[in-house]
Amino acid sequence: MSIKYVTISREYGSGGREIGKKLAEKLGIPFYDKEIIEQTAFKTGFAEEYVKKQGEYASARNWLEYSFSARNSYGMSPEDYLWSKQREVIIDLANKGPCVIVGRCADYILRDRADVLNVFIHANNEYRKKRITEIYHDPGHSDKMLKDIDKKRSFNYKYYTEQEWGKSQNYDMTLDSATLGVDLCVDIIYEICRGDLTKNPVVTE
Amino acid sequence: MSIKYVTISREYGSGGREIGKKLAEKLGIPFYDKEIIEQTAFKTGFAEEYVKKQGEYASARNWLEYSFSARNSYGMSPEDYLWSKQREVIIDLANKGPCVIVGRCADYILRDRADVLNVFIHANNEYRKKRITEIYHDPGHSDKMLKDIDKKRSFNYKYYTEQEWGKSQNYDMTLDSATLGVDLCVDIIYEICRGDLTKNPVVTE
Repeated sequence: MSIKYVTISREYGSGGREIGKKLAEKLGIPFYDKEIIEQTAFKTGFAEEYVKKQGEYASARNWLEYSFSARNSYGMSPEDYLWSKQREVIIDLANKGPCVIVGRCADYILRDRADVLNVFIHANNEYRKKRITEIYHDPGHSDKMLKDIDKKRSFNYKYYTEQEWGKSQNYDMTLDSATLGVDLCVDIIYEICRGDLTKNPVVTE
Repeated sequence: MSIKYVTISREYGSGGREIGKKLAEKLGIPFYDKEIIEQTAFKTGFAEEYVKKQGEYASARNWLEYSFSARNSYGMSPEDYLWSKQREVIIDLANKGPCVIVGRCADYILRDRADVLNVFIHANNEYRKKRITEIYHDPGHSDKMLKDIDKKRSFNYKYYTEQEWGKSQNYDMTLDSATLGVDLCVDIIYEICRGDLTKNPVVTE
Protein backbone atom coordinates (compact mmCIF):
# COMPACT_ATOMS: atom_id res chain seq x y z
CA MET A 1 0.00 0.00 0.00
CA SER A 2 1.08 3.56 -0.58
CA ILE A 3 -0.37 4.83 2.68
CA LYS A 4 1.69 3.20 5.42
CA TYR A 5 0.61 5.11 8.50
CA VAL A 6 -2.77 6.20 9.76
CA THR A 7 -3.08 8.70 12.56
CA ILE A 8 -6.44 9.06 14.22
CA SER A 9 -7.36 12.10 16.26
CA ARG A 10 -10.73 11.92 17.95
CA GLU A 11 -13.27 13.60 20.14
CA TYR A 12 -13.61 11.86 23.49
CA GLY A 13 -16.04 8.95 23.29
CA SER A 14 -16.43 9.15 19.50
CA GLY A 15 -14.98 5.68 18.93
CA GLY A 16 -11.72 6.82 17.35
CA ARG A 17 -9.70 4.35 19.37
CA GLU A 18 -11.97 1.45 18.40
CA ILE A 19 -11.78 2.53 14.76
CA GLY A 20 -7.97 2.61 14.95
CA LYS A 21 -7.79 -0.81 16.58
CA LYS A 22 -10.16 -2.46 14.09
CA LEU A 23 -8.42 -0.77 11.18
CA ALA A 24 -5.00 -2.02 12.29
CA GLU A 25 -6.37 -5.56 12.66
CA LYS A 26 -7.90 -5.41 9.21
CA LEU A 27 -4.70 -4.05 7.68
CA GLY A 28 -2.57 -6.52 9.65
CA ILE A 29 -0.33 -3.80 11.04
CA PRO A 30 0.38 -2.78 14.65
CA PHE A 31 -1.91 -0.48 16.59
CA TYR A 32 0.17 1.54 18.98
CA ASP A 33 -1.32 2.75 22.18
CA LYS A 34 0.03 0.93 25.24
CA GLU A 35 3.47 0.63 23.63
CA ILE A 36 3.73 4.40 23.41
CA ILE A 37 2.82 4.76 27.07
CA GLU A 38 5.16 1.97 28.20
CA GLN A 39 8.13 3.12 26.16
CA THR A 40 7.63 6.76 27.11
CA ALA A 41 7.40 5.76 30.77
CA PHE A 42 10.61 3.76 30.38
CA LYS A 43 12.42 6.63 28.65
CA THR A 44 11.31 9.33 31.07
CA GLY A 45 11.17 7.32 34.26
CA PHE A 46 7.66 8.68 34.81
CA ALA A 47 4.88 6.38 35.98
CA GLU A 48 2.79 4.83 33.21
CA GLU A 49 -0.38 6.29 34.73
CA TYR A 50 1.14 9.78 34.58
CA VAL A 51 2.26 9.28 30.97
CA LYS A 52 -1.18 7.98 30.05
CA LYS A 53 -2.91 10.96 31.58
CA GLN A 54 -0.51 13.75 30.69
CA GLY A 55 0.53 12.44 27.29
CA GLU A 56 -2.47 14.03 25.66
CA TYR A 57 -3.29 16.84 28.03
CA ALA A 58 -0.09 18.86 28.31
CA SER A 59 0.38 20.71 31.54
CA ALA A 60 -3.17 21.97 31.66
CA ARG A 61 -5.35 21.03 34.57
CA ASN A 62 -8.01 23.39 33.31
CA TRP A 63 -8.33 25.84 30.43
CA LEU A 64 -7.69 28.85 32.65
CA GLU A 65 -4.43 27.47 33.93
CA TYR A 66 -3.52 26.57 30.38
CA SER A 67 -4.30 30.04 29.05
CA PHE A 68 -1.71 31.51 31.34
CA SER A 69 0.88 28.81 30.97
CA ALA A 70 4.04 29.57 29.05
CA ARG A 71 7.51 28.22 28.76
CA ASN A 72 10.06 30.03 30.88
CA SER A 73 13.80 30.05 31.05
CA TYR A 74 14.09 28.25 34.39
CA GLY A 75 14.08 24.76 32.91
CA MET A 76 11.99 22.32 30.96
CA SER A 77 8.64 21.41 32.46
CA PRO A 78 7.96 17.70 33.04
CA GLU A 79 5.22 17.95 30.42
CA ASP A 80 7.57 19.33 27.77
CA TYR A 81 10.08 16.59 28.62
CA LEU A 82 7.30 14.01 28.37
CA TRP A 83 6.25 15.45 24.99
CA SER A 84 9.80 15.35 23.70
CA LYS A 85 10.33 11.72 24.72
CA GLN A 86 6.90 10.62 23.55
CA ARG A 87 7.66 12.20 20.19
CA GLU A 88 10.87 10.16 19.97
CA VAL A 89 8.95 6.98 20.79
CA ILE A 90 6.39 7.68 18.06
CA ILE A 91 9.10 8.35 15.46
CA ASP A 92 10.98 5.19 16.51
CA LEU A 93 7.82 3.07 16.29
CA ALA A 94 6.98 4.53 12.87
CA ASN A 95 10.50 3.72 11.70
CA LYS A 96 9.82 0.07 12.46
CA GLY A 97 7.13 -0.04 9.77
CA PRO A 98 3.47 0.70 8.96
CA CYS A 99 1.14 1.27 11.92
CA VAL A 100 -1.95 3.00 13.24
CA ILE A 101 -1.52 5.58 15.99
CA VAL A 102 -4.34 7.20 17.92
CA GLY A 103 -3.98 10.67 19.42
CA ARG A 104 -0.76 12.12 20.84
CA CYS A 105 -0.35 14.61 17.98
CA ALA A 106 1.02 11.80 15.80
CA ASP A 107 -0.35 13.54 12.70
CA TYR A 108 1.88 16.51 13.47
CA ILE A 109 4.87 14.43 14.56
CA LEU A 110 4.81 12.46 11.28
CA ARG A 111 3.89 15.47 9.13
CA ASP A 112 6.94 15.28 6.89
CA ARG A 113 6.00 11.84 5.56
CA ALA A 114 3.82 11.61 2.43
CA ASP A 115 2.62 8.11 3.34
CA VAL A 116 0.55 9.13 6.35
CA LEU A 117 -3.21 9.47 6.28
CA ASN A 118 -4.51 11.82 8.96
CA VAL A 119 -8.08 11.27 10.12
CA PHE A 120 -10.23 13.05 12.69
CA ILE A 121 -13.26 11.30 14.21
CA HIS A 122 -16.14 13.22 15.79
CA ALA A 123 -19.68 12.49 16.93
CA ASN A 124 -22.59 14.23 18.60
CA ASN A 125 -22.80 14.24 22.39
CA GLU A 126 -25.72 11.81 22.63
CA TYR A 127 -23.82 9.18 20.69
CA ARG A 128 -20.67 9.71 22.72
CA LYS A 129 -22.42 9.54 26.08
CA LYS A 130 -24.26 6.39 25.07
CA ARG A 131 -21.01 4.84 23.87
CA ILE A 132 -19.09 5.76 27.01
CA THR A 133 -21.88 4.28 29.14
CA GLU A 134 -21.95 1.04 27.11
CA ILE A 135 -18.23 0.49 26.69
CA TYR A 136 -16.73 1.96 29.82
CA HIS A 137 -19.77 1.25 32.01
CA ASP A 138 -19.64 4.86 33.06
CA PRO A 139 -23.01 6.60 32.87
CA GLY A 140 -21.81 9.72 34.64
CA HIS A 141 -20.66 11.76 31.64
CA SER A 142 -22.35 15.11 31.11
CA ASP A 143 -22.08 17.36 28.06
CA LYS A 144 -19.77 19.54 30.11
CA MET A 145 -17.40 16.66 30.85
CA LEU A 146 -17.15 15.81 27.16
CA LYS A 147 -16.49 19.43 26.35
CA ASP A 148 -13.83 19.73 29.05
CA ILE A 149 -11.92 16.66 27.88
CA ASP A 150 -12.06 17.78 24.25
CA LYS A 151 -10.90 21.20 25.34
CA LYS A 152 -7.87 19.68 27.05
CA ARG A 153 -7.02 17.65 23.95
CA SER A 154 -7.49 20.74 21.85
CA PHE A 155 -5.24 22.86 24.08
CA ASN A 156 -2.58 20.16 24.15
CA TYR A 157 -2.64 19.92 20.35
CA LYS A 158 -2.49 23.68 19.93
CA TYR A 159 0.31 23.99 22.50
CA TYR A 160 2.59 21.52 20.77
CA THR A 161 1.61 21.90 17.12
CA GLU A 162 0.32 25.48 16.87
CA GLN A 163 -2.48 24.03 14.77
CA GLU A 164 -6.20 23.81 15.45
CA TRP A 165 -7.41 20.42 16.70
CA GLY A 166 -10.40 19.05 14.78
CA LYS A 167 -10.27 21.70 12.07
CA SER A 168 -11.20 19.95 8.83
CA GLN A 169 -8.39 21.63 6.89
CA ASN A 170 -5.76 19.97 9.11
CA TYR A 171 -6.77 16.42 8.18
CA ASP A 172 -7.03 14.38 4.99
CA MET A 173 -10.42 13.28 6.19
CA THR A 174 -12.83 13.84 9.05
CA LEU A 175 -15.62 11.35 9.75
CA ASP A 176 -18.77 11.48 11.86
CA SER A 177 -18.83 8.13 13.66
CA ALA A 178 -22.36 8.75 14.94
CA THR A 179 -23.93 9.08 11.51
CA LEU A 180 -21.60 6.76 9.59
CA GLY A 181 -21.02 4.14 12.29
CA VAL A 182 -17.70 2.77 13.51
CA ASP A 183 -17.49 -0.12 11.02
CA LEU A 184 -18.10 2.07 7.98
CA CYS A 185 -15.42 4.48 9.20
CA VAL A 186 -13.02 1.51 9.41
CA ASP A 187 -13.99 0.37 5.90
CA ILE A 188 -13.56 3.82 4.37
CA ILE A 189 -10.05 4.26 5.79
CA TYR A 190 -9.17 0.65 4.96
CA GLU A 191 -10.11 1.09 1.31
CA ILE A 192 -7.94 4.18 1.05
CA CYS A 193 -4.99 2.33 2.60
CA ARG A 194 -5.50 -0.62 0.26
CA GLY A 195 -5.40 1.64 -2.78
CA ASP A 196 -2.37 3.13 -4.43
CA LEU A 197 -2.93 6.64 -3.17
CA THR A 198 0.09 8.85 -3.35
CA LYS A 199 -0.64 11.87 -1.27
CA ASN A 200 -0.13 15.42 -2.36
CA PRO A 201 -0.56 14.93 -6.12
CA VAL A 202 0.08 18.62 -6.59
CA VAL A 203 3.42 19.77 -5.31
CA THR A 204 3.57 23.08 -3.53
CA GLU A 205 4.86 25.75 -5.88
CA MET B 1 -29.30 2.79 -1.72
CA SER B 2 -30.11 4.16 1.71
CA ILE B 3 -28.37 7.46 1.11
CA LYS B 4 -30.40 9.22 -1.57
CA TYR B 5 -28.98 12.72 -1.49
CA VAL B 6 -25.47 14.05 -1.34
CA THR B 7 -24.77 17.68 -0.58
CA ILE B 8 -21.31 18.99 -1.26
CA SER B 9 -20.02 22.16 0.34
CA ARG B 10 -16.61 23.22 -0.83
CA GLU B 11 -13.80 25.71 -0.61
CA TYR B 12 -13.44 27.74 -3.78
CA GLY B 13 -11.30 25.92 -6.33
CA SER B 14 -11.10 22.70 -4.32
CA GLY B 15 -12.87 20.63 -6.97
CA GLY B 16 -16.11 20.11 -5.03
CA ARG B 17 -18.22 20.86 -8.08
CA GLU B 18 -16.29 18.38 -10.22
CA ILE B 19 -16.57 15.76 -7.47
CA GLY B 20 -20.33 16.32 -7.29
CA LYS B 21 -20.74 16.07 -11.06
CA LYS B 22 -18.66 12.89 -11.38
CA LEU B 23 -20.40 11.35 -8.39
CA ALA B 24 -23.85 12.01 -9.83
CA GLU B 25 -22.80 10.48 -13.18
CA LYS B 26 -21.45 7.41 -11.41
CA LEU B 27 -24.59 7.05 -9.31
CA GLY B 28 -26.81 7.75 -12.31
CA ILE B 29 -28.73 10.49 -10.51
CA PRO B 30 -29.15 14.18 -11.37
CA PHE B 31 -26.55 16.77 -10.48
CA TYR B 32 -28.31 20.03 -9.79
CA ASP B 33 -26.54 23.26 -10.41
CA LYS B 34 -27.88 25.14 -13.41
CA GLU B 35 -31.41 23.91 -12.71
CA ILE B 36 -31.34 25.60 -9.32
CA ILE B 37 -30.21 28.85 -10.86
CA GLU B 38 -32.72 28.68 -13.72
CA GLN B 39 -35.67 27.75 -11.56
CA THR B 40 -34.82 30.30 -8.89
CA ALA B 41 -34.45 32.97 -11.57
CA PHE B 42 -37.85 31.96 -12.96
CA LYS B 43 -39.51 32.03 -9.52
CA THR B 44 -38.03 35.35 -8.44
CA GLY B 45 -37.90 37.13 -11.76
CA PHE B 46 -34.25 37.94 -11.04
CA ALA B 47 -31.62 37.57 -13.74
CA GLU B 48 -29.83 34.23 -13.83
CA GLU B 49 -26.48 35.98 -13.48
CA TYR B 50 -27.68 37.67 -10.29
CA VAL B 51 -29.02 34.40 -8.89
CA LYS B 52 -25.79 32.66 -9.75
CA LYS B 53 -23.72 35.29 -8.00
CA GLN B 54 -25.89 36.09 -5.00
CA GLY B 55 -27.24 32.61 -4.40
CA GLU B 56 -24.19 31.69 -2.40
CA TYR B 57 -22.97 35.03 -1.16
CA ALA B 58 -25.96 36.58 0.64
CA SER B 59 -26.02 40.35 0.66
CA ALA B 60 -22.40 40.73 1.61
CA ARG B 61 -20.08 42.56 -0.72
CA ASN B 62 -17.34 42.35 1.87
CA TRP B 63 -17.00 41.08 5.40
CA LEU B 64 -17.26 44.53 6.94
CA GLU B 65 -20.56 45.21 5.25
CA TYR B 66 -21.73 41.79 6.27
CA SER B 67 -20.75 42.27 9.88
CA PHE B 68 -23.07 45.23 10.13
CA SER B 69 -25.88 43.80 8.06
CA ALA B 70 -29.08 42.80 9.82
CA ARG B 71 -32.66 42.23 8.92
CA ASN B 72 -34.90 45.20 9.58
CA SER B 73 -38.63 45.69 9.73
CA TYR B 74 -38.90 47.73 6.52
CA GLY B 75 -39.28 44.76 4.22
CA MET B 76 -37.53 41.68 2.95
CA SER B 77 -34.20 42.20 1.23
CA PRO B 78 -33.84 40.84 -2.29
CA GLU B 79 -31.23 38.45 -0.92
CA ASP B 80 -33.58 37.03 1.69
CA TYR B 81 -36.26 36.67 -0.96
CA LEU B 82 -33.77 34.93 -3.23
CA TRP B 83 -32.76 32.60 -0.37
CA SER B 84 -36.37 31.76 0.36
CA LYS B 85 -37.19 30.91 -3.26
CA GLN B 86 -33.93 29.06 -3.82
CA ARG B 87 -34.74 26.97 -0.74
CA GLU B 88 -38.11 26.08 -2.25
CA VAL B 89 -36.45 25.06 -5.52
CA ILE B 90 -33.98 22.79 -3.68
CA ILE B 91 -36.77 21.12 -1.68
CA ASP B 92 -38.86 20.65 -4.84
CA LEU B 93 -35.92 19.14 -6.74
CA ALA B 94 -35.14 16.81 -3.82
CA ASN B 95 -38.79 15.72 -3.75
CA LYS B 96 -38.41 14.52 -7.34
CA GLY B 97 -35.87 11.89 -6.24
CA PRO B 98 -32.22 11.22 -5.38
CA CYS B 99 -29.69 13.85 -6.47
CA VAL B 100 -26.39 15.57 -5.79
CA ILE B 101 -26.43 19.26 -4.90
CA VAL B 102 -23.38 21.47 -4.59
CA GLY B 103 -23.34 24.50 -2.31
CA ARG B 104 -26.33 26.74 -1.58
CA CYS B 105 -26.67 25.51 2.03
CA ALA B 106 -28.40 22.37 0.72
CA ASP B 107 -27.05 20.40 3.71
CA TYR B 108 -28.96 22.72 6.02
CA ILE B 109 -32.06 22.91 3.83
CA LEU B 110 -32.36 19.11 3.74
CA ARG B 111 -31.28 18.64 7.37
CA ASP B 112 -34.47 16.88 8.46
CA ARG B 113 -33.90 13.96 6.09
CA ALA B 114 -31.93 10.93 7.33
CA ASP B 115 -31.00 9.90 3.77
CA VAL B 116 -28.69 12.82 3.06
CA LEU B 117 -24.90 12.59 3.19
CA ASN B 118 -23.26 15.95 3.84
CA VAL B 119 -19.70 16.36 2.60
CA PHE B 120 -17.25 19.25 2.77
CA ILE B 121 -14.32 19.44 0.33
CA HIS B 122 -11.22 21.49 1.06
CA ALA B 123 -7.70 21.81 -0.32
CA ASN B 124 -4.56 23.84 0.21
CA ASN B 125 -4.15 27.12 -1.66
CA GLU B 126 -1.45 25.87 -4.04
CA TYR B 127 -3.69 23.07 -5.28
CA ARG B 128 -6.66 25.38 -5.64
CA LYS B 129 -4.75 28.06 -7.53
CA LYS B 130 -3.26 25.46 -9.87
CA ARG B 131 -6.71 23.98 -10.46
CA ILE B 132 -8.35 27.33 -11.12
CA THR B 133 -5.61 28.19 -13.59
CA GLU B 134 -5.93 24.86 -15.42
CA ILE B 135 -9.70 24.56 -15.50
CA TYR B 136 -10.90 28.12 -15.68
CA HIS B 137 -7.81 29.39 -17.52
CA ASP B 138 -7.56 32.08 -14.90
CA PRO B 139 -4.06 32.46 -13.48
CA GLY B 140 -4.88 35.61 -11.57
CA HIS B 141 -6.00 34.13 -8.27
CA SER B 142 -4.05 35.14 -5.20
CA ASP B 143 -4.26 33.63 -1.73
CA LYS B 144 -6.27 36.69 -0.71
CA MET B 145 -8.85 36.13 -3.45
CA LEU B 146 -9.37 32.53 -2.36
CA LYS B 147 -9.74 33.67 1.22
CA ASP B 148 -12.21 36.39 0.28
CA ILE B 149 -14.45 34.05 -1.70
CA ASP B 150 -14.41 31.43 1.07
CA LYS B 151 -15.20 34.15 3.57
CA LYS B 152 -18.26 35.16 1.56
CA ARG B 153 -19.45 31.56 1.36
CA SER B 154 -18.81 31.20 5.06
CA PHE B 155 -20.72 34.38 5.92
CA ASN B 156 -23.61 33.38 3.69
CA TYR B 157 -23.79 29.97 5.34
CA LYS B 158 -23.63 31.44 8.83
CA TYR B 159 -26.24 34.08 7.96
CA TYR B 160 -28.83 31.58 6.79
CA THR B 161 -28.01 28.51 8.87
CA GLU B 162 -26.42 29.91 12.04
CA GLN B 163 -23.85 27.14 11.67
CA GLU B 164 -20.16 27.28 10.94
CA TRP B 165 -19.19 26.59 7.33
CA GLY B 166 -16.46 23.99 6.93
CA LYS B 167 -16.48 22.95 10.59
CA SER B 168 -15.89 19.20 10.61
CA GLN B 169 -18.64 18.58 13.17
CA ASN B 170 -21.27 19.95 10.78
CA TYR B 171 -20.64 17.30 8.11
CA ASP B 172 -20.74 13.53 7.89
CA MET B 173 -17.40 13.72 6.17
CA THR B 174 -14.79 16.24 5.10
CA LEU B 175 -12.22 15.38 2.45
CA ASP B 176 -8.96 16.99 1.35
CA SER B 177 -9.11 16.91 -2.44
CA ALA B 178 -5.47 18.01 -2.73
CA THR B 179 -4.07 15.04 -0.82
CA LEU B 180 -6.70 12.45 -1.77
CA GLY B 181 -7.36 13.57 -5.34
CA VAL B 182 -10.72 14.27 -6.98
CA ASP B 183 -11.34 10.71 -8.22
CA LEU B 184 -10.69 9.09 -4.85
CA CYS B 185 -13.07 11.58 -3.22
CA VAL B 186 -15.72 10.52 -5.78
CA ASP B 187 -15.04 6.84 -5.08
CA ILE B 188 -15.24 7.22 -1.31
CA ILE B 189 -18.61 8.99 -1.44
CA TYR B 190 -19.86 6.59 -4.12
CA GLU B 191 -19.08 3.54 -1.98
CA ILE B 192 -20.97 5.04 0.96
CA CYS B 193 -23.99 5.75 -1.26
CA ARG B 194 -23.89 2.22 -2.70
CA GLY B 195 -23.95 0.70 0.78
CA ASP B 196 -26.90 0.28 3.05
CA LEU B 197 -25.96 3.04 5.43
CA THR B 198 -28.79 4.24 7.60
CA LYS B 199 -27.65 7.45 9.15
CA ASN B 200 -27.87 8.27 12.81
CA PRO B 201 -27.72 4.73 14.20
CA VAL B 202 -28.05 6.18 17.67
CA VAL B 203 -31.22 8.15 18.19
CA THR B 204 -30.94 11.35 20.17
CA GLU B 205 -32.12 10.77 23.71
